[in-house]
Amino acid sequence: MIDFDAPSRRDLLAAIGKAGGAIAMYQAMTALGHAAPTQFAGPPKLSGTRKGASVVVLGSGLAGMVAAYELIKAGYTVTILEFQDRPGGRNYTVRGGDVIKEVGGAVQKCNFAPGNYLNPGPWRIPFHHQAVLHYCQELGVALEPFIQVNMNGYVHSEKVYGGKPQRIAEVGVDFKGHVAELLAKATNKGALDDTVSTEDKQKLLEAMRGWGLLNKDMAYTSSLQTSAQRGYDRPPGGGVNGAPTPSQIAGLSDVLDQRVWGTVSGFFNRTQQLTMFQPVGGMDMIGKAFAKRLAGKIKLNSKVSKIAQDDSGVTVSYEDVATGKKSELKADYCVCTIPLTILSQIEVQVSEPKQTAIKSLPYHSSCKVGLEMKRRFWEQDEQIYGGHSYTTQSISEIAYPSYGFFKPGPAVLLGAYAGGAAAYQFGGMTPAERIETALKQGSVFHKQYREEFSNGVAVAWSRLPWIQACASTWSDDLRKVHYQNLVSLDGRIVLAGEHCSYIGAWMEASLLSSIDAITRLHQRALAA
Amino acid sequence: MIDFDAPSRRDLLAAIGKAGGAIAMYQAMTALGHAAPTQFAGPPKLSGTRKGASVVVLGSGLAGMVAAYELIKAGYTVTILEFQDRPGGRNYTVRGGDVIKEVGGAVQKCNFAPGNYLNPGPWRIPFHHQAVLHYCQELGVALEPFIQVNMNGYVHSEKVYGGKPQRIAEVGVDFKGHVAELLAKATNKGALDDTVSTEDKQKLLEAMRGWGLLNKDMAYTSSLQTSAQRGYDRPPGGGVNGAPTPSQIAGLSDVLDQRVWGTVSGFFNRTQQLTMFQPVGGMDMIGKAFAKRLAGKIKLNSKVSKIAQDDSGVTVSYEDVATGKKSELKADYCVCTIPLTILSQIEVQVSEPKQTAIKSLPYHSSCKVGLEMKRRFWEQDEQIYGGHSYTTQSISEIAYPSYGFFKPGPAVLLGAYAGGAAAYQFGGMTPAERIETALKQGSVFHKQYREEFSNGVAVAWSRLPWIQACASTWSDDLRKVHYQNLVSLDGRIVLAGEHCSYIGAWMEASLLSSIDAITRLHQRALAA
Repeated sequence: MIDFDAPSRRDLLAAIGKAGGAIAMYQAMTALGHAAPTQFAGPPKLSGTRKGASVVVLGSGLAGMVAAYELIKAGYTVTILEFQDRPGGRNYTVRGGDVIKEVGGAVQKCNFAPGNYLNPGPWRIPFHHQAVLHYCQELGVALEPFIQVNMNGYVHSEKVYGGKPQRIAEVGVDFKGHVAELLAKATNKGALDDTVSTEDKQKLLEAMRGWGLLNKDMAYTSSLQTSAQRGYDRPPGGGVNGAPTPSQIAGLSDVLDQRVWGTVSGFFNRTQQLTMFQPVGGMDMIGKAFAKRLAGKIKLNSKVSKIAQDDSGVTVSYEDVATGKKSELKADYCVCTIPLTILSQIEVQVSEPKQTAIKSLPYHSSCKVGLEMKRRFWEQDEQIYGGHSYTTQSISEIAYPSYGFFKPGPAVLLGAYAGGAAAYQFGGMTPAERIETALKQGSVFHKQYREEFSNGVAVAWSRLPWIQACASTWSDDLRKVHYQNLVSLDGRIVLAGEHCSYIGAWMEASLLSSIDAITRLHQRALAA
Repeated sequence: MIDFDAPSRRDLLAAIGKAGGAIAMYQAMTALGHAAPTQFAGPPKLSGTRKGASVVVLGSGLAGMVAAYELIKAGYTVTILEFQDRPGGRNYTVRGGDVIKEVGGAVQKCNFAPGNYLNPGPWRIPFHHQAVLHYCQELGVALEPFIQVNMNGYVHSEKVYGGKPQRIAEVGVDFKGHVAELLAKATNKGALDDTVSTEDKQKLLEAMRGWGLLNKDMAYTSSLQTSAQRGYDRPPGGGVNGAPTPSQIAGLSDVLDQRVWGTVSGFFNRTQQLTMFQPVGGMDMIGKAFAKRLAGKIKLNSKVSKIAQDDSGVTVSYEDVATGKKSELKADYCVCTIPLTILSQIEVQVSEPKQTAIKSLPYHSSCKVGLEMKRRFWEQDEQIYGGHSYTTQSISEIAYPSYGFFKPGPAVLLGAYAGGAAAYQFGGMTPAERIETALKQGSVFHKQYREEFSNGVAVAWSRLPWIQACASTWSDDLRKVHYQNLVSLDGRIVLAGEHCSYIGAWMEASLLSSIDAITRLHQRALAA
């Protein structure tokens, strides 16, 4: 943040306070650095660790690994127990050769070409997720821009435009044009005279004219002026035949469709605002970088069955799922990052309110389908480089890869990102049916789909045995009753993970939750 | 474009025409591929060239080089005469060690660290500039995303917010919130009952509620809901203190400022829509790639003084500005890409209307200032990764580099991009004064500016001896009189360059203009 030195800053605020009153004062404070983009305040400062103190960490997702990484730095002896045969948890990338085993027995083997991948879980990092960005730097994870907004992607709604996909630029410009025309019309009728001052009324009309591209009669029309934003029928060129011809705007009814304004508004969502990043080579480069620093500390294939504690320490019972061998691990403290869908099935010796919280939080699912196409037809034929095309169908959207632009050869696009009820519909299908559904629905955007399709994988989170869901779903009511009970330190045990946050299904949630948890655990250890 | 086969496409259109009338029909045609994003239809197909036919190309900017490149491929013998001591023209990148000499005698030596650069001319490539993207692929120029939109950049207007910069996300969300609230209010008062159908009225209210984030009373207010787009005072986090607090919205008057709605609307401008690209390492990688293919064909330091033609060919008189030696070059044809600011000072044997056109087209100027800072404080302190901050001051904006994200050490930001009258104000200053002005004005955004500043260069296009301007400025009236006269083939001479286009100061203009010009020249040559 802008770091004004205290005295001059105070003087300035005082002057603004006198001149503009409380609201101007508040705004000035915000601009001067009061509003923070992140709760991340740097890695935890853990000092004074008692020699020989030990922590068992359950789960090697980002929450578990950042806990282990920082606790080891602070001097603790740490062991991580991980159920899967790989570290990373939901920080997960599927590549050619990878095998996906589901509850119910379905097995998929991914056949993507080398270099291609699908991120079934997290796939983008907002600029304000400073904890993720910090650890990427600290661990040497290379980042590249993630193309979240591409105005040349499509919007498809079954209800409007005759069901034909439109370019996002077209519907976005038409939407603001119609809104501007209507507001100008109402303003000129005097409908807002009791709300808007005379001075603001003139400014409002000018704003509508400029923002909405209205003509001299304050109308939004087909013209070269509006085409300069929404695109032309024939764009400007060079030489003898360089003159452009305008495109035809759509009518009001079409742009009032929820899929249209939802797309335009969605670009403003804080978690999806530009600039965004992704790790070069796949999201699991973050998990792999953590795991590299934790070499020898992670016991894979370890299924936890019981977490007990007493005055002297924590005892975790677990089974090696590869060999069937049962063991106990004792430590002074425990950081448990096991998702609640699984933890609620395990005996955990914590207070009744925490037990209730663990059992009370619902999770949602999600399904992503990765489709490898023989070539980048979306780039080569339709000038779409990254970004998304949105639809009212159950696949919800398709997304184009933000890496390997312009490259010949096969590429993987996200063929479905189903949430809500659709996620469970996809979960109920076989992998082949999910891919078929994605191909069928995605063909509404791209006639090339079937012909260019090579192979695919379909990751339904509700079917993954190690989590059986995607992420936690807090409601305001649930928070009031259970949140503090869930995150509180309970003797020698503390929970961490995205379920212990106000952020939800983002990697930043796991990291911030875990940093908070180990900071409190460390304070407890010092006080012991 | 989507390539529907003719019969089924016709059937579909007929069905839509019956069902939805003319407008639906038009929209369907557009969606099915009638509206093209570019006039580029691939490189020119020039066949049947007469053995030994020769062309002299004047100027080695992109227009001149693409002409030479394609004409040589077609079998012509080509020589390029270039005034400067480097090829590329306005496709230009300044790096450490480069020297900039101005009309008036000022000389700057750039001191940027290795790897850092300023693109004084073109600096970004829209997705629809398919000719540029095509030649980048053909010539092996690596591209990376150019971050055109960054919602975490600032907007500064001297008139509002007490003159304090606001984050683009804040003003953008507040603008649509207030617009939505006003339109909902007017709609509920019945002000649009004669314009909007009853059904659309309900949809309009729902759209305003969703798009504008209005509350249940249809008001735009400070809340967690609006903060989820504009940003929080304290954003959501993890653990015990994870709860967010909302930010304070700004009032209507502030968001009606032209700098605010101009920024929000500007992201929709076709030439600045996402996705955008830049060459890795600097824009002149394109010019260098062309020049590599044209090795031995470009005579540098060649100042043209006369272009004559008769029935047998073209004679170009020129002087080697390094040695003073005067020469003549004869060829069958001439492609002249010299900017009109210079060409209007040269004797050219073309028709009276073309001579008049050459002398009639005004040019505008531009000034860019590159500031090398000791570190990326905009990233490290303020979470700004690429994009722009906009101001009403004469620098117009500052732009953050779209390369080298997160790197330690010095980085170059664009400290001014002055156009209009401001470009000439900057041109009238010494380079040191331009840099001082950029530092002073840019400090409104970043208090770190002075302390972190290391060195800078200031390129005022009106002062560059080889062009003395930035680019052509056509008006509709000028086009009617002069455009076809300018671009027409005149005997054995044809003009090309951005001034011979409807696009203007973009590289795409130079390429498309030149492709059109050599296509016509080739037809003339075949007919000879």
